[in-house]
Amino acid sequence: MRHILIIGIGAGNPEHITVQAINALNRADVLFIPTKGANKAELAEVRREICARYVTRGDSRTVEFAVPIRRTEGRSYGESVDEWHAGIAATYEDLLQHELREGQSGAFLVWGDPMLYDSTIRIVERVRARGRVAIDFEVVPGITSLQALCASHRIPLNLVGKPVEITTGRRLAESFPAKSETAVVMLDGEQAFQEIDDPDAEIYWGAYLGTPDEIVISGRLADVKEDILNARAQARARMGWIMDIYLLRKGADFDE
Amino acid sequence: MRHILIIGIGAGNPEHITVQAINALNRADVLFIPTKGANKAELAEVRREICARYVTRGDSRTVEFAVPIRRTEGRSYGESVDEWHAGIAATYEDLLQHELREGQSGAFLVWGDPMLYDSTIRIVERVRARGRVAIDFEVVPGITSLQALCASHRIPLNLVGKPVEITTGRRLAESFPAKSETAVVMLDGEQAFQEIDDPDAEIYWGAYLGTPDEIVISGRLADVKEDILNARAQARARMGWIMDIYLLRKGADFDE
Ligand SMILES: C[S@@+](CC[C@H](N)C(=O)[O-])C[C@H]1O[C@@H](n2cnc3c(N)ncnc32)[C@H](O)[C@@H]1O
Ligand SMILES: C[S@@+](CC[C@H](N)C(=O)[O-])C[C@H]1O[C@@H](n2cnc3c(N)ncnc32)[C@H](O)[C@@H]1O
Repeated sequence: MRHILIIGIGAGNPEHITVQAINALNRADVLFIPTKGANKAELAEVRREICARYVTRGDSRTVEFAVPIRRTEGRSYGESVDEWHAGIAATYEDLLQHELREGQSGAFLVWGDPMLYDSTIRIVERVRARGRVAIDFEVVPGITSLQALCASHRIPLNLVGKPVEITTGRRLAESFPAKSETAVVMLDGEQAFQEIDDPDAEIYWGAYLGTPDEIVISGRLADVKEDILNARAQARARMGWIMDIYLLRKGADFDE
Repeated sequence: MRHILIIGIGAGNPEHITVQAINALNRADVLFIPTKGANKAELAEVRREICARYVTRGDSRTVEFAVPIRRTEGRSYGESVDEWHAGIAATYEDLLQHELREGQSGAFLVWGDPMLYDSTIRIVERVRARGRVAIDFEVVPGITSLQALCASHRIPLNLVGKPVEITTGRRLAESFPAKSETAVVMLDGEQAFQEIDDPDAEIYWGAYLGTPDEIVISGRLADVKEDILNARAQARARMGWIMDIYLLRKGADFDE
């Protein structure tokens, strides 16, 4: 049996790390760090910094690995992701077989929290189902980008007693404002908020949250839409990549 | 100016605390601990334990205070909460005036994350708006009960690329399964899941998450409904109080 620790490391600020995560990092014999290609070098850098600061046992090893690229041509979204996960599962299986001995523990350091728009849990379940390496696993939560967004804007996620929807750029049109009074949007490559034309909508936007490059903008959507599009385009050009998230809201506390 | 730190302390396990929160606790001259009456003595106890373990500066003080009770008779839900918040704001104002000096920092330790179904941010905004004490404030995120739930069940929150709704027991009927394929339910005094009659619904339930009394049950809703109701009633009778949360889901990854 090999033991897998799926550890949430927070969403940008190394101090997002929990004591539970620090203890889990120090139980791992091997720390697996994904390197996703040049664009996301900064994310690998945060992971390395977390290991440097918080891993105090001297005898664990770090193994960096490349995450396969997702192919999209000629495939539906579902097929594309399914095939991609199968590729990552094969990569994990290899790593576990060759980098971890029977009885050892290996940690995957996951951005934010492993439960939120991340497939590490699903992929480890696939590896287990394939049955070629005997594994068990546990999950350690971490601060998400959604929490970093609310903390930086100093806002509650929900209106008093009201629901909230968490969704993706692809699906925002189905959600806000018709279905949900509060929607949080992640994984949005198309700035889906542009298409929303509601005079009462407010937006709370954040990019590179928790990092020294953090940018936040908020206001009535109609008033700040252009500012956000400009700030986003400029930051992206300057940095070569971007991570952003936003909350859209209409309505107020105490109106039923 | 007095500086307020609104600090998320996690949802039951003292090791949920982040390094950012530990540093914030150590910036506070005064730590404010709510004691909500006998029932929730355990929650005050977790807060005290966090202070004992992680506050390393020797010169800060702890101030315990009683949170006013919410009155519901003859008021709508909105009126009742609004009035309750006004009462808590008056309590906070008093605390800040009498327990904190000009230029000092005071910390409110918030269960889970201050953004999620918690009104500390709103109440501190009210105190600021009243203008009787000059304050500024910052928010530090913490692990939520929702994250503790997913970590204990070792499940992702969302299906691949799909949205998620976070809601309350009072509003569940509006949401699942008609509106949302995944719904997380908090603040449910009536076990609203009982009313859901969908052969494909699955439930992931957890109580006292992160504490030594943690209970988790999962399965097809129709199969485990009674088990959950029984386990909940027994635990509640034994402990004298309960905190529980659950995720309802239908559908699967990769079906569009
Ligand atoms: C694949 S998801 C992973 C989410 C992660 N598991 C979490 O808990 O935040 C990536 C998306 O998260 C959001 N995101 C992650 N980190 C962020 C950050 N530091 N600032 C802004 N958005 C971020 C962006 O919406 C990005 O498209
Ligand atoms: C007023 S809300 C506060 C939520 C908190 N801010 C958070 O981030 O989890 C209280 C609700 O949170 C959930 N909850 C909080 N802690 C919990 C725990 N340890 N186990 C199960 N449910 C919990 C329950 O649904 C409870 O009714």
